Amino acid sequence: LPAHLKRQYQRLKKVAAKDLGSEEVAKLIAEIVTHARDLLAACEMVDLTSRVAGKSYFGFRGKADSRPVNVDLYVHDPLEFRYLAESFLAGTPQAAPEEITKTAYTMAISVFAAHDVNEVGRKTSATFFEVLIGHMVSRALGVAPRKRVRMPESQVELPTDYVFDPGPNRRKVHLPIKTSTRERGVQAWVHHLILDGIFGKGRFRGVLVVCGETKRNARTGEVIEICVPAQWQIFQERVSELSRIYYLDPPQPYLALAHAHPPVDVQPFGHAFADLRELLEL
Amino acid sequence: LPAHLKRQYQRLKKVAAKDLGSEEVAKLIAEIVTHARDLLAACEMVDLTSRVAGKSYFGFRGKADSRPVNVDLYVHDPLEFRYLAESFLAGTPQAAPEEITKTAYTMAISVFAAHDVNEVGRKTSATFFEVLIGHMVSRALGVAPRKRVRMPESQVELPTDYVFDPGPNRRKVHLPIKTSTRERGVQAWVHHLILDGIFGKGRFRGVLVVCGETKRNARTGEVIEICVPAQWQIFQERVSELSRIYYLDPPQPYLALAHAHPPVDVQPFGHAFADLRELLEL
Repeated sequence: LPAHLKRQYQRLKKVAAKDLGSEEVAKLIAEIVTHARDLLAACEMVDLTSRVAGKSYFGFRGKADSRPVNVDLYVHDPLEFRYLAESFLAGTPQAAPEEITKTAYTMAISVFAAHDVNEVGRKTSATFFEVLIGHMVSRALGVAPRKRVRMPESQVELPTDYVFDPGPNRRKVHLPIKTSTRERGVQAWVHHLILDGIFGKGRFRGVLVVCGETKRNARTGEVIEICVPAQWQIFQERVSELSRIYYLDPPQPYLALAHAHPPVDVQPFGHAFADLRELLEL
Repeated sequence: LPAHLKRQYQRLKKVAAKDLGSEEVAKLIAEIVTHARDLLAACEMVDLTSRVAGKSYFGFRGKADSRPVNVDLYVHDPLEFRYLAESFLAGTPQAAPEEITKTAYTMAISVFAAHDVNEVGRKTSATFFEVLIGHMVSRALGVAPRKRVRMPESQVELPTDYVFDPGPNRRKVHLPIKTSTRERGVQAWVHHLILDGIFGKGRFRGVLVVCGETKRNARTGEVIEICVPAQWQIFQERVSELSRIYYLDPPQPYLALAHAHPPVDVQPFGHAFADLRELLEL
């Protein structure tokens, strides 16, 4: 990691640990995104062949090639992006769901692509994404999350994904966040099963947030999307129940699960903010 | 890790992965133990002050000090040890439970102490212990374990501790193995909860094997034993149910749980071999 990025991420982790939903975190996220977009401005943009029905992708080319960027979700225009960034900084998601999805997607993928072209490791991208999504949810709920839960009637604490406790007479939220799931999707259901087992089924609402499932075929360079919808239905039936799965770049085979049997409620991320209040109700 | 140890452990992992219960694994374990005891023969032995009621400990002193060694469980005498090692190699645990416990304890602690005095890291000791205990159980059950389970009706595999499947109309065994648990005991119950959740409660019998819970107080050098019996009762009631917990050097506060309410069935390791058949019954 270059020294300036290392410092930036140390600061981000520090302010995020203090109060994830704070304006300070929003400002630091915006700063990191602006820095990433400045870097990308110097990169060539390359059209990619997409094998994903109905979706077009391009890539940034620097020292290395970036991951695929969805043409319809990524906001290029500096003025349009500044408008979205200002509504992000204001932190009141009065915006339409489509705008929220685009804002989060553009911020996330700008940083991922800047990392990719400079060969910064995936761990750093995952950290940024977790803070970005965690911040937006924390600000909307007005609650700071924890990353550990205390066992009932015990001093023992277990490490977890972000968990939000909005207080008495509300359900808690378990929020795993992943840049992509591929064949590791089962982890979110397994972690939710642990919370169900320890605190009682349904005490926590499971909400998984994922950026997307596209990647470039190593041989052909074409954009492909890796989905395993039948596996997800098995996890939902046999492991535990996730209340929602939100995507920034939603794969069609997963969106279709919302109306399948058994259903898995997959939605574009922008819908989360209207949904969340309902999910908290007992 | 010194080169000769590295080679030895690479070989151990390789033959263990092929067939954990095989004679080849037994021979390699005996070889590693003999090598460790040759090393320890050159070390000074130091009496330790024990704060553990009813138990006496000594330590080996080399480049560094070893962990505490239980005077009554460790077999020093070369002839007596050779006799125990031969019954280990023969692999038919007709021996009395007390002899089995002493054999396993002496083999494990010889290797741990040789590692300690030469400042070999704890990961290597944990690997050896897992293979030693896994081998004895695998040989007794006549079944090779796996370290992953396949989700029902799915291609997805989850990594696990050793799991043994003795075939139709028998319960499976989930065998977490730890040199000590300290404050990490909850992990065994959580891993068992995952198997209960996915395969149905009781399909797997949870059997935790631990060497011991003693350590030296960093300031005074005295031997202390760290136990949290009230926490274990909570895990057993609220997380999942482990059928047995076996210790090579059993702490009295945990043995007492076998007759507490709620009970946790803690036993000396030597009893495992008579118990296991019963545990497999549906």
